[in-house]
Amino acid sequence: MTFTQLPLTDITADACSSPLARAAIAPESADTLARSLKALADPARLRIISIVSAHADQEACVCDLTDQLTLSQPTISHHLKVLVDSGFLTRAKRGTWSYYSLVPGSLSSVAGVLAGV
Amino acid sequence: MTFTQLPLTDITADACSSPLARAAIAPESADTLARSLKALADPARLRIISIVSAHADQEACVCDLTDQLTLSQPTISHHLKVLVDSGFLTRAKRGTWSYYSLVPGSLSSVAGVLAGV
Repeated sequence: MTFTQLPLTDITADACSSPLARAAIAPESADTLARSLKALADPARLRIISIVSAHADQEACVCDLTDQLTLSQPTISHHLKVLVDSGFLTRAKRGTWSYYSLVPGSLSSVAGVLAGV
Repeated sequence: MTFTQLPLTDITADACSSPLARAAIAPESADTLARSLKALADPARLRIISIVSAHADQEACVCDLTDQLTLSQPTISHHLKVLVDSGFLTRAKRGTWSYYSLVPGSLSSVAGVLAGV
């Protein structure tokens, strides 16, 4: 499964409005939102996002994740790739390690569409 | 794939806070949230929620949905079952037809966990 970079900020600019619950969503917007949700809809990926966000400087390397998740490094690398490709995480390579941080606003863009009436 | 009724309101009561992005999420909470997101991560299901919400009285029958979606009635029924089982829609049977409405707060509960920092 591959995920292309999604224009998350295009879904909605307001984290507390709820276009989804107020007007019929366009088919193309439904496709885009479904792809973003699919990238998030995995317990390991949710935990990775959460660990990265809770880490000092909101940045974590793979070693930080292997410490907290009972998953192999290749499995964690796969989940990280999905989250980078779908626009939720960015990667910065420094020396031997890659460091991952949350893309600001990426979660709130999705949340904005889902926020209830 | 089946979805059990999820305690969506237990994830968070505040649609604009973001527990996920502030502290490491517990594995059980990640499982619950992932199941909810998986139920939503389908373009047809997102469109169904949107059509139901935008409809008069925020209630729609299968006939309203077949009018707007280019999907067979069995396929729509499958998606409706997933959304009912996962706690996003409720069904009320009146006469020949079943009417579906959005469970208040179900989308905002999920959005509350995702809302960005």
